[in-house]
Amino acid sequence: MSLEDQVWTADDAISFVKRQGIYAEAERLQAVEIGDGNLNYVFRIQSADRDKGVIVKKAVPFLRVVGETWPLTEERASIEAAALRFQNEVASGYVPEVYAYNPDDHAIAMEDLSDLEVMRSALIKGEHFPLFTKHAAEFLARTLFWSSDRSGKITEKKERAAAMVNPQLCEITERLILSEPFYDAPGNRIEGGLEEDVEKLWGDTEVIDTVFSLKDKFMSCGQALVHGDLHTGSIMVDQAQTRMIDPEFAFYGPIGFDPGLLFANLVLNMIHHEVLGHSPSYREYLLAAVEDIWTRFTDEFCELWRVTSYDGVFHNDRTEHSYILGVLQDTCGYAGCEMIRRTIGLASVADLADIQEEKARIAAKKASLVIGSDLIKLSSRAESIDEFVAVAKSLDISPVVTPSGTER
Amino acid sequence: MSLEDQVWTADDAISFVKRQGIYAEAERLQAVEIGDGNLNYVFRIQSADRDKGVIVKKAVPFLRVVGETWPLTEERASIEAAALRFQNEVASGYVPEVYAYNPDDHAIAMEDLSDLEVMRSALIKGEHFPLFTKHAAEFLARTLFWSSDRSGKITEKKERAAAMVNPQLCEITERLILSEPFYDAPGNRIEGGLEEDVEKLWGDTEVIDTVFSLKDKFMSCGQALVHGDLHTGSIMVDQAQTRMIDPEFAFYGPIGFDPGLLFANLVLNMIHHEVLGHSPSYREYLLAAVEDIWTRFTDEFCELWRVTSYDGVFHNDRTEHSYILGVLQDTCGYAGCEMIRRTIGLASVADLADIQEEKARIAAKKASLVIGSDLIKLSSRAESIDEFVAVAKSLDISPVVTPSGTER
Repeated sequence: MSLEDQVWTADDAISFVKRQGIYAEAERLQAVEIGDGNLNYVFRIQSADRDKGVIVKKAVPFLRVVGETWPLTEERASIEAAALRFQNEVASGYVPEVYAYNPDDHAIAMEDLSDLEVMRSALIKGEHFPLFTKHAAEFLARTLFWSSDRSGKITEKKERAAAMVNPQLCEITERLILSEPFYDAPGNRIEGGLEEDVEKLWGDTEVIDTVFSLKDKFMSCGQALVHGDLHTGSIMVDQAQTRMIDPEFAFYGPIGFDPGLLFANLVLNMIHHEVLGHSPSYREYLLAAVEDIWTRFTDEFCELWRVTSYDGVFHNDRTEHSYILGVLQDTCGYAGCEMIRRTIGLASVADLADIQEEKARIAAKKASLVIGSDLIKLSSRAESIDEFVAVAKSLDISPVVTPSGTER
Repeated sequence: MSLEDQVWTADDAISFVKRQGIYAEAERLQAVEIGDGNLNYVFRIQSADRDKGVIVKKAVPFLRVVGETWPLTEERASIEAAALRFQNEVASGYVPEVYAYNPDDHAIAMEDLSDLEVMRSALIKGEHFPLFTKHAAEFLARTLFWSSDRSGKITEKKERAAAMVNPQLCEITERLILSEPFYDAPGNRIEGGLEEDVEKLWGDTEVIDTVFSLKDKFMSCGQALVHGDLHTGSIMVDQAQTRMIDPEFAFYGPIGFDPGLLFANLVLNMIHHEVLGHSPSYREYLLAAVEDIWTRFTDEFCELWRVTSYDGVFHNDRTEHSYILGVLQDTCGYAGCEMIRRTIGLASVADLADIQEEKARIAAKKASLVIGSDLIKLSSRAESIDEFVAVAKSLDISPVVTPSGTER
């Protein structure tokens, strides 16, 4: 059987949800492929008789965006199902509900969130989400605390960590976020006009040495079950709800990895609006979100830690401070790596790539490289989230097109 | 079936080696139980027709020293077999050879090392082993390098780490080495006369806070497959050979844990000889061994790293230095914890406990608490192994009995 034979049609997806007992055999269903096409096949199933649909996510044994030449085991479906179930358990309401997972099919049936918007697109449009910071902080605090040793669930943690070892998807991160953007790797996509900036980055020994430590920590430091890919394209929002989707990169890694990726993507969005000369108040909105998420996240994490009291005599104000400080420093470092890889690595983001006017796009990318490098350097000495925000603000990014330009 | 029914007799051990095909059915065998009795049952099998015997190690589903009230799954036999096989592969000659492992029996048949001596007893007798430092360093460098990310075997590492998750034995370490000695836990065994010293230790916030970090790292930082219990009672020696035995505590943890435990036990032995007024040249011998093992271990580790060159642009003199520095600091910290737990924790060592004369024994224990605390503090700032040695030398431990006293 060729690998391509394992790709599902809409009918296969319909047959799956019926086999799983989510719909009756007789029910008339429609299925549409809605996947963004990088890794998996994603279908929305809808019944004539019901309002809400079901999402079916099917893993195929290769990286869809590349094809059969990049094999990737379908194990990622089991990782995603396990991560979603854990996250539903401890942070209910912030991830899609799992209706069924079948390990033979490598397919998950889950809650349809089509009413929500992908956060990246919403932020590019300049929308506001008043509950987002609270939701993001609660998701981070609850999933990261309850999977960490601080929760005292130490045997459960070790067993789940073993079950959720995720070598193939971790290797994608190790290569695409934590290695290749820092040297002249064939996969990089460096736009003309950035050559000098990139040379400067690659020659910056402080950056390179710090990325080594961050990569080493990513590979060996299993603090908690991280989502592993928490950029704004993995978040669905509306005015009332926030859902974190697609945790197929989940594994036990450094806690700071999740807020790091999230904050990096907020700053990338900030740069987008800056170079296009949009209202400065949106910059303030995004940076206030970083600060607010951090404060709420760490406050709730520490509150859970105090209540759980597993650490006994070892838990005091000083150890609490130094533990959170370590998470902050990692957050700065991983945020910096994410910004750089979204600028010159294999996979860009719309916040940068979709800026039509070349000058503005190059200015945005230059700014991203500087802020990214500065965040990486900050990771060895940050003392508070204010310093993160100060780095993001430090560049005077002048609008390259006027607010009335072609961009809006 | 009661748990005790799972204890083997000599006949069960003989039947096991015959079932495994190590001896023919007809061969006349003798078996003697030789275990020290803490965790497992250990038999030496001998045939009338052969010189060398076979060791059978059988795990029972409880902690033997405590009994059925402390259940402990027999999984540790599979961990030990897997660890020995890996160590044999990369550091051949430094561990017993595994002849057979049967997961149903939870039993391992392995090379008989009865001709060798337990290193702790040999050091208490003041013996010298000219090849020991070379052997110990090679064992550390090869097992720790080849199981670490520095080897580039990143998928293999993650998969082996998952297979060798060892929650129950790790919890013993977490409790007995990294927690209970640092507060008034019921399991501690604090000899009269040490009360003030122990109060001082428990009130030392720098020590307590540092132990928190060391424990956290032990629980979440899977750098390499550590032996996990590398004290001098786990080492068999003679003038030509060195073998590391009993890796049932093996798991992916911080690299510094292994040299830390080893060095701590060398320093405990040094204290033994000091309070008994034995020749100062033995102190020099032991401390030179610490320095020599460290230098050889890190030299070989870095040599392997350079040759393997997995880290590409991230490997340079600075990152090499900072990586090894991290290992050194952990080594100091875990050494300090081990010294303290051997002094006031549940499981002592003969180097301290077998000093007959009370004054000398108390003096030894006081010295151990001071050096242990100082090593823990050193872990946040050590720059070279000389500082470790300097701490071990820093106390002027006067002989409490004369060399001609009752102790020799």
